[in-house]
Parts: sequence; structure tokens; C-alpha cells
Amino acid sequence: MKKVLLDETDLPDRWYNILPDLPAPPAPYLHPGTMQPLGPADLAPIFPQAIIAQEVSQDRWIEIPDQVREIYKIWRPTPLYRAERLERALETPARIYFKYEGVSPAGSHKPNTAVPQAYYNAQEGVKRLTTETGAGQWGSALALAGSFFDLEVTVYMVRVSYEQKPYRRALMETWGATVFASPTDRTNSGRAILARDFRFLGSLGIAISEAVEDAAIRDDSKYFLGSVVNHVLLHQTVIGQEAKKQMEMVGAYPDVVIGCVGGGSNYAGLAYPFMADRLSGARPDTRFIAAEPAACPTLTRGVYAYDFGDTAGVGPVAMMYTLGHNFVPDPIHAGGLRYHGDAPSLCLLVQQGLVEPRAYTQNQCFAEAVRFARVEGFLPAPEPSHALKAVAEEAAAAREAGDERVILFGLCGHGHFDMSAYDAYFAGKLEDVELSQQRIDTAVEELPKVPA
Amino acid sequence: MKKVLLDETDLPDRWYNILPDLPAPPAPYLHPGTMQPLGPADLAPIFPQAIIAQEVSQDRWIEIPDQVREIYKIWRPTPLYRAERLERALETPARIYFKYEGVSPAGSHKPNTAVPQAYYNAQEGVKRLTTETGAGQWGSALALAGSFFDLEVTVYMVRVSYEQKPYRRALMETWGATVFASPTDRTNSGRAILARDFRFLGSLGIAISEAVEDAAIRDDSKYFLGSVVNHVLLHQTVIGQEAKKQMEMVGAYPDVVIGCVGGGSNYAGLAYPFMADRLSGARPDTRFIAAEPAACPTLTRGVYAYDFGDTAGVGPVAMMYTLGHNFVPDPIHAGGLRYHGDAPSLCLLVQQGLVEPRAYTQNQCFAEAVRFARVEGFLPAPEPSHALKAVAEEAAAAREAGDERVILFGLCGHGHFDMSAYDAYFAGKLEDVELSQQRIDTAVEELPKVPA
Repeated sequence: MKKVLLDETDLPDRWYNILPDLPAPPAPYLHPGTMQPLGPADLAPIFPQAIIAQEVSQDRWIEIPDQVREIYKIWRPTPLYRAERLERALETPARIYFKYEGVSPAGSHKPNTAVPQAYYNAQEGVKRLTTETGAGQWGSALALAGSFFDLEVTVYMVRVSYEQKPYRRALMETWGATVFASPTDRTNSGRAILARDFRFLGSLGIAISEAVEDAAIRDDSKYFLGSVVNHVLLHQTVIGQEAKKQMEMVGAYPDVVIGCVGGGSNYAGLAYPFMADRLSGARPDTRFIAAEPAACPTLTRGVYAYDFGDTAGVGPVAMMYTLGHNFVPDPIHAGGLRYHGDAPSLCLLVQQGLVEPRAYTQNQCFAEAVRFARVEGFLPAPEPSHALKAVAEEAAAAREAGDERVILFGLCGHGHFDMSAYDAYFAGKLEDVELSQQRIDTAVEELPKVPA
Repeated sequence: MKKVLLDETDLPDRWYNILPDLPAPPAPYLHPGTMQPLGPADLAPIFPQAIIAQEVSQDRWIEIPDQVREIYKIWRPTPLYRAERLERALETPARIYFKYEGVSPAGSHKPNTAVPQAYYNAQEGVKRLTTETGAGQWGSALALAGSFFDLEVTVYMVRVSYEQKPYRRALMETWGATVFASPTDRTNSGRAILARDFRFLGSLGIAISEAVEDAAIRDDSKYFLGSVVNHVLLHQTVIGQEAKKQMEMVGAYPDVVIGCVGGGSNYAGLAYPFMADRLSGARPDTRFIAAEPAACPTLTRGVYAYDFGDTAGVGPVAMMYTLGHNFVPDPIHAGGLRYHGDAPSLCLLVQQGLVEPRAYTQNQCFAEAVRFARVEGFLPAPEPSHALKAVAEEAAAAREAGDERVILFGLCGHGHFDMSAYDAYFAGKLEDVELSQQRIDTAVEELPKVPA
């Protein structure tokens, strides 16, 4: 069987929340002003009640509303593939499977959380959504979700991506969203940055500050996060729950689960349902590999500390691996992997040695993406090309060890809107950036001071 | 049920050939030099034997090779959707279904024929494939198919599209193809055109001439056609065969089958398996609507006559509705619908009154595409936006008549590589071109003289 399909009736009816299963209690979010633990009330100006409840929930399972499942059914369950042609190309005895999220209308996993977030906001009378986007995948997903629930959507798009990816902007506009190149002069956060450098290319951190500020000053508006926080990660677990069923159908269980990490939601969505088996002791030997760009090596080289989630320091403060909230990575083409921190739960798992992070420069990742496209057909986005590089490493290790290990990886999106990156790769114009230790040291010097 | 999925075991194992079921014998192809009926030997310099046999076959069913079915399984069977949200948006009692071919790696129906063509060529020792492409969908599909069978692929891309759609070119290059902007100085046909007008924006007719010439002068090379001819149309019938099964699964049969027509292969692929039921008398009342652009209105305003398939007159001469082989349509954004003729079998069905053609200007089509994207999520290519316009007309007719007619249409590809067209639409920059009768009269004056 080349692809493993599930019926609509196999669509999960609940999300998996890893919080109660974590090997150590997660450090609480802190209030950006007081640096004291954050209460649900502090989140109310930003998020609707249902989302806040999910964010702090200790329930292992959270029911998916029927209206959300109805929308999910447009593209879910997504296919799981056996990549036999890739196995041959990599000359490996390993069996390689991938879960393909590029079949969603937005072309990535992002609608898995955009849709429930839009739904809960619409339920609570919100009329307008604001968010940031890097590569444009999250903004596209929110524009799509907004159109399903007749919500107005405003997107702050990191300027470098806005300019590199005009067609992502056009896509968001087709679904009815309004898109601004961040930093803008519409917010205090944006104006402050522009006053320092009016040609600034933007960063996810600044775009987040602008979107949060925009939502906070208007009663009818709420802010949407595309990654990092718990409720986003748990929405994404539909991916891994389906993948588990599909692996069962082919009688296999992964020895190693691989994905790319920007904020962590795509990888957590795939990995956490398998991680549950490792944490419970049912599958103690499964390995987990998180692939990230060497230009933004949060998990491999960041410090584990409390930091602001956004540059202006208006959002919650979280314990995570961070390069510092003022860190602005070089404009690599995997725009979705340029965040200065990572999801707190994923960071905890890395810190506990349960997830192994690896960092790669971009040319070797694009080489794997092109190899994949030529044997398996589908064109990967630049982000999952990092996962493909880790897959190639594991495939080589399997060949050397002579074992038939089962590799499962997440192909979290297609690259149809990233052809300029492929073009640059073929033209030899992609730079391989390795971050200097000095730059990291400088960036983390400005971490917030947290009372003991 | 929102989408109707088939299992891999439901993938058709044979293609449907409509030739033996046509209501009148099709007029034979003529040799471009002698204007006498063409024999299989005349096609040998261009096509491999297996393709020639299919082109002239009178067998109703033709077996699909296992190796082709294996590749098909990467994206087939494709989903069929009930478009309930579109029904509500159109305020119609009609039930609207669509068959979605955008899930293929190339994003359209084109790989359905590119893959078997590449397979048969590889089987017969061909090393190199040449073809033309307009919007880039066909070239992408061939680049993809070539990569599956390790064949070198050379694509002549109509210059206006080459410039409008650089990312389509990058996509073809990612799959390993070499792409030239046509007209080129690599062929006699191209040089002759450039000598007359070195800034010429190209046409499908000229690109075909170049690709045919390129294939004919090299022993290891064969030419690939993406539409119009019989073998292409029959390869596409996997679409309609699957759709029939899927409609059965929901207990419905279409009252009207709608698709867009450039050369006719996408529409024939969807419609012919249903047309078989009409021709056999099993379903005598099914209606068939072919939607085309008003800027290139072959079926609605062309003449039914023998004409060259390509501008230089090096390929077969076919009986069809044509605007003349020298006709160059204005550069509308539905690049795949700009061919001067149409598939002979489809033309015969139009001429016999079995298929109703309708022509639409592009702004009204984009309006329907945007409506569709905002309610159903998926972003249509500009080509099937013409089908959507016909769907909207039928939906309105159903409302007026108060009937619940079942509409089935083909969403033959996504528009991820056509965002510049959406951009132009939103900016009000798309022109609505209605062809003058004088221009048609002039174009058809140069039809070849055929002995009685």
C-alpha cells in the first residue's frame, strides 16, 4: 500500500493534551509586567474563555466541537505515505513513512488550530482576529479559518517574507484577510521599531507585538497564536492520533519520530500522541528528533530560561529554550522556523532528554527537498526540508547498522508558495548561516529578570 | 458526508475509450503534407507504438499498466466533494458535487496522462521527452512524470506564461526539467516566428511546433501532448470512472456535468464515462456543459473544419472546432484554455448537440473562484473558474425552476501558481475580452485546403 487513508469516521473526536503526562510539572507563564505567575484573568483581554481553559487544562483529552470536525473533514484525515521510492534513493533498509499535511486548503498543518480558534472566538462574539505571520503559512490558515466563520482577519506579516512571498499575501487576500508588512506605523510597538530603523526587515517577535497590541485595544478583536502555546499544540494532535491509527493499519510502530521545529506545533502535533506511549512506559524506546535551522538554533544552542514570547514584552513570559526575545535571525527561506523560542512543553521534553534536537544549514536541507520531490512527487516547503535532512541521517544510520528501523516524519506543508527559495537554491544563492556563539551570548543578555 | 473517498483498490484498472461509442464515425486525422488520411506509420517519428495503438484503437476499454497504477496511487483515487457551503452561498436547491484533481503533486489532472505517456516511452527506450506548455500545468506534469521514470524533459513554455509565472518554471526545474521560453532560436519554427517579430509573446500553437520539431530531429526523443488527442482523453477517464463510483456511494447521478475546456482532456476525462450512459440510452437526459473563455471561444464561435493542430503545420491535421491555427488569443490568465482548437471527439459531440458549450469573460469567472475559495476553502486555478461560472448559472436556474438538480463539476486544478492572476483581479486589472467576429473571420481564412 502506497498511501494509508482513513475514513471520515476515523477523524479524532478529541485532542490530546500532554500537560498531565509531562515528566515534570511545567513552569507557569509569568505576567510580563509583574513577573508573577499568570492567572486566567490575565489572558482574557487576548484570548476567548474556551481557549484560556484549554491553555491551562490538566485534562488529558479535550473534546473537538462538531462544527470544528465538520470543517476538518474538508481535508482530514490526511494521508500517511510509505516513501518506498525515497528509501531506494537513500539506499536504506529503513522503512520510511510520512504524514502529509499539505492537503489542507492552506497547504500546511496550520488550519488544524486556526479553525478551532476561529470557532471559539466566533462563539464568544468576536468579530475580528489579528495575528502575525512569518512565511505566511499561519496567516493563510487564519485567513481561511476566518472565511469559514465570517470573521474579519488582520495579519501582520514579517516584512522580509511580505517582500519575498507576494503570492502568500495574495492568497490571504483571496480568503478575505487584510495584510500589513510588519513593522507598521499602526501600533506603538511598530512605531518604536521604525523610529530606530525605518528599513527594518521585521521579525516574528515584533509582528507578534503588533498583533497583540492591535487585539488588546479593540473590544471586538482577539489575538491568534499559530504555535508555541499549549492550546495550539493540543489542536495539532489530530495529526499524530491519525498517524498512530494509520501505522497500526500497516502493522508498524515508529522507532523514531522526526519533524521540523519553529515554534513546535507541527512537531508536537505529530509526536505527542507517540510520546504519550513513551511516557507511559508502553513504548519506552521510541526516539524523537526535532530538526531546526542552524540560523535559528533555539533547541540546540539556546538557553533554558524565562523569556518574553514577543519582542515588545506585552505577551506572557514563558520558560523555554530561547535565543533572547530581541534575537532576529538572518532571513533564511524557512520563514516558519525563525522564532526566537519554542513551545514550553517541547522545551521541557528536550531538557529532560526525551527529544533530541538537531540543527541544519539550509542548502543541505534543500538538497533533500529536491531529492524527495524527484522521487515522491510532492514538493516540500522549506520548513520540513529540515525534517528530511534528519530522515536522511537516520536512513544512513540504519544502513550502517543494518537495521530496518521504522522512521516516521511529518511533511507539514507543500512548497508551492516557496518557489523563489527553490530558485535561489538552484542558482546557488542560498547562504549557509552558522550562528556565532558571541551573537547568541549578546542576544540572551537581555533576558528578563525573574524573582526567585 | 463532506468528501467521498475511494480505496486504492477502487482505482480503475482500465481507461475508457469513447471512439467506438460516438454517435458518428470520427473524421480521420490527415497528413499535414499530403492532406490524405494518416496511417499509424506517419505517427511513428513522434509517438511510441503503444501510444499510436491507443490513439487509433476502437476498443472500448484499455488496460492500465500496473506500473502506471502504482504511480497513480500517489494521489489517486482523488476525492469527490459535496459543496454544501457553495450551495448555501448560491442560495440554490441544487446539489453540487465536485471532483478535485488538485491533489496531484503537480496540482492538476495533467499527470493522469503524463505518467502513462512517460511510462510507454521509457518502455520503448526513449531517453528524452519534449513538449509545450501554456500556463505550465502540462509542463509541470510532464516534468514530474519524467522524474518518476528517469527521463530527460525539455519544455517549450509560451513566453507570456514564462514571464507571468516564473514559479511554474521553478517547479518544473525542481522536478529536473529544462524550460525554454517559446518562441526560441533552437528550432526552425521558432526562428521563423522570431524573424517576423522578435518580441512575440508566443502561443501554444508555436510552442507545439517547436516541441514536435525538437523531438523529430533526435532519435532518442519523443513528443508529448497534454490534451486534444484521443489517447490523452482516454487516460483522463480515470477521473470520470472514479466520480461515477463516488456518486453511486452517495446515491446520486448528475443531471448536468460541467467542466472547463482548453483542449478538452480534463472535461472529457470527467464527462465521457457519464456520456457513455447517455449514448447507450441508460441515462438519456444527462446534460453536458463545456465552459470556455470568451477570449478563445473555439466551441461557441469557431468553425467546424479540418485544421492544423500546430501553427507551423508539422503535426496531424484534425477535424475540429477551430479559430484557425494562426489564431493567437489575448494573454488572459487562464493560460490552459488558450488553444485554437479542441479535441476532435469533443467537437463531434458538440456538433451533434450532446455537449453544450458556453463562453465567459474572465472577471465573472474570478468572482466565482473567489466565492468558492471563501466558502469551500480550496483555491481554484483560473481555468476551472470558468466551470464555476457555469455552475453558478445552473444553480440559479435550479432556484428559478425550484428543482434539486444534481450538478457535478470538475475542479481540475488548484491556483497556487496563479496568484498573480488573483492579484490582478483584485486590483481591477483583468480585461474582459470579447472576440470580434472580424478577427475570427480573418483567423479562419487560412484553414488548410482539404481534397473532397
